[in-house]
Amino acid sequence: MLIQSTPCQATLDTIFTDLIQIRHSNPVIHNISNLVVMPIIANCLLALGASPIMAHAQQELADILQLSQALAINIGTLDKHWLASIHSAQKTALQFNVPIVFDPVGAGASAYRTETAKKILAQGVQVLRGNATEIMALNNLPIKTKGVDSLESSEHALSSAIQLAKQYQCIVVVSGQTDLVVHADHYVTLSYGTPLFTKVVGMGCSLTAIIASFLAVNAHAFSACVHAVALFALVGELVAQTATGPGSFYSQLLDKLYTLQASDLASVLQK
Amino acid sequence: MLIQSTPCQATLDTIFTDLIQIRHSNPVIHNISNLVVMPIIANCLLALGASPIMAHAQQELADILQLSQALAINIGTLDKHWLASIHSAQKTALQFNVPIVFDPVGAGASAYRTETAKKILAQGVQVLRGNATEIMALNNLPIKTKGVDSLESSEHALSSAIQLAKQYQCIVVVSGQTDLVVHADHYVTLSYGTPLFTKVVGMGCSLTAIIASFLAVNAHAFSACVHAVALFALVGELVAQTATGPGSFYSQLLDKLYTLQASDLASVLQK
Amino acid sequence: MLIQSTPCQATLDTIFTDLIQIRHSNPVIHNISNLVVMPIIANCLLALGASPIMAHAQQELADILQLSQALAINIGTLDKHWLASIHSAQKTALQFNVPIVFDPVGAGASAYRTETAKKILAQGVQVLRGNATEIMALNNLPIKTKGVDSLESSEHALSSAIQLAKQYQCIVVVSGQTDLVVHADHYVTLSYGTPLFTKVVGMGCSLTAIIASFLAVNAHAFSACVHAVALFALVGELVAQTATGPGSFYSQLLDKLYTLQASDLASVLQK
Repeated sequence: MLIQSTPCQATLDTIFTDLIQIRHSNPVIHNISNLVVMPIIANCLLALGASPIMAHAQQELADILQLSQALAINIGTLDKHWLASIHSAQKTALQFNVPIVFDPVGAGASAYRTETAKKILAQGVQVLRGNATEIMALNNLPIKTKGVDSLESSEHALSSAIQLAKQYQCIVVVSGQTDLVVHADHYVTLSYGTPLFTKVVGMGCSLTAIIASFLAVNAHAFSACVHAVALFALVGELVAQTATGPGSFYSQLLDKLYTLQASDLASVLQK
Repeated sequence: MLIQSTPCQATLDTIFTDLIQIRHSNPVIHNISNLVVMPIIANCLLALGASPIMAHAQQELADILQLSQALAINIGTLDKHWLASIHSAQKTALQFNVPIVFDPVGAGASAYRTETAKKILAQGVQVLRGNATEIMALNNLPIKTKGVDSLESSEHALSSAIQLAKQYQCIVVVSGQTDLVVHADHYVTLSYGTPLFTKVVGMGCSLTAIIASFLAVNAHAFSACVHAVALFALVGELVAQTATGPGSFYSQLLDKLYTLQASDLASVLQK
Repeated sequence: MLIQSTPCQATLDTIFTDLIQIRHSNPVIHNISNLVVMPIIANCLLALGASPIMAHAQQELADILQLSQALAINIGTLDKHWLASIHSAQKTALQFNVPIVFDPVGAGASAYRTETAKKILAQGVQVLRGNATEIMALNNLPIKTKGVDSLESSEHALSSAIQLAKQYQCIVVVSGQTDLVVHADHYVTLSYGTPLFTKVVGMGCSLTAIIASFLAVNAHAFSACVHAVALFALVGELVAQTATGPGSFYSQLLDKLYTLQASDLASVLQK
């Protein structure tokens, strides 16, 4: 058993139940993403088995969301045009009961991002995923920031995550050396992964979109988050055993997401 | 002989005649592409031997098209700003007799994309390339869609492709497990390739740009399309023999496009 | 000794002094980049040890530049919206004494790019980096252009580079088979590298951002430029010994940037 917590007992079996469902049903994941990581998110989703679509024109958001099983939003290269699209997509997704995962890229690095992220949260999301710095900034803590990279450990962000989970009635995922999945009254800690995740652009944003894929097939949102976080971290740790740097890590990560079977993870779980 | 059909007899020799010409003359291919796949298209064109340029500002479209040998347009992340650029570029390319290849990414997924694609077709293109769902949607068939991925086989889209080829006086390429190259009164079928093409983002858009590269060096447009489609499918099938997933597939595809010699394809053609 | 020139004596030791400083301090590099190469620049900077951020909204430029150690600007997919952001970012960076490296992608390919690039230069930059065609176009020479690729050798651009260095009081880096680092009254020539750099999109833009990273840790700007140019060319030449094409070259380049030690370069320096 990977995680034993109330109300979530995640095992390799429960993770793979979701993964197999993603591979089988190829859920459409609508992404309104920053301009930097679009191909990386798309490739991670394709390797996972999901069907990514990127679309931001107001004229088609309703059509696209009607055929989507989840919406992933990140604000990495925010401007007023993209923000208008984000707000429309979010509103439409809420109407259609399409689950929303939100990634407040760079919250804390500028007042504009921090305030924008709070507005998006206030409108309603199912899951908020960020690094420790972003989560603490959204909880109004005075943080030091290095742009989009975190200077804090996930554990330091726990109380902020709990606070945000209560305030916005959502699940909060804090990514880092340790990953936290936090709901108002419970949380789990996962400690798989590899530092190489921080040396390839878009890995956090890709996790956001992978969480969306798990939400698309698992109605129990907390379990879906734990499964997504565990899977991505486990695959990353597995691949880090053979990668010789961030270039081969990214390439092998896509290969392994595509071919992964539970037995591949033995070497990671034995540690 | 790969293809025996009237009026196209494509062989490895005829394909490589075009490829060597691309490698020798490095035709400039102007791309107005969606935001997701820009680096992927550029890398495929560079590996092939072409010289990609991406530009969308109205102020420079005439200058850029004056030095371009072909224009590739895709509407994957459409909005009104990009659409204005697309229309200007198309109009200018038609004036300058620069061949245009058009990729109606996601036609059928939203009314906006479908209607926009029809307007672009009506203005005039030399080649339309899409998957079966997109081609059927443009022919007004009621189709089920999964965003930008196809749920139909190419063969099901044949009558739609013929209809569109007649209506818009263009060549229609339908990509899928089987590829079709269709003109008003004849078509050819190619059955090379690999499912891995569907697990890397931008492979269809890259084929669109590769077709543009072949049009730049071969005045016989139908043969140019057949050569481009055959080459990309053959290289993909070759690389799939050694790739261990979509990450290594993409990396090896670029390597092989760059180094390919006719003799490399023996293992694919023997099957 | 790699370079012996007044006033720059670059050795592996001096290069690695800067590189180790980058790896240690992870300087934040603010990029206003074209849409094609954003993930490639970000991955090169991460592999190098820097912390990239892409941001273009007027509302946050001051906040982002306040935490940045350098600004890299390229105009590869210019339009009036991006240009407004570029001008604001440049103005703010000048106020904050944040060093600016400017990449005039495609200057000469359109009057719009050439004129825009001159305006940016006139406003003030610390370093201008381009290929020979771009540098000559900015010096008003009648050049043949193939879009964003150069048709001239770096040596032909030397007098233009000197002229621009004087006119705009900046350092000019000319990239090509031979690289030049040029100041008003002195220059150095470096002849490391590999033609594979021209077969992967964004390598020039990535060098621009890498120069910014070296400026962030080395107050002697000319040395910083020489170190950045030498490092990137040396790593490329090293990786070209094992790469089998542009796909594996890019992947291995990221791996090697991340793990590079001085002893790895013996095989390149022995030649």
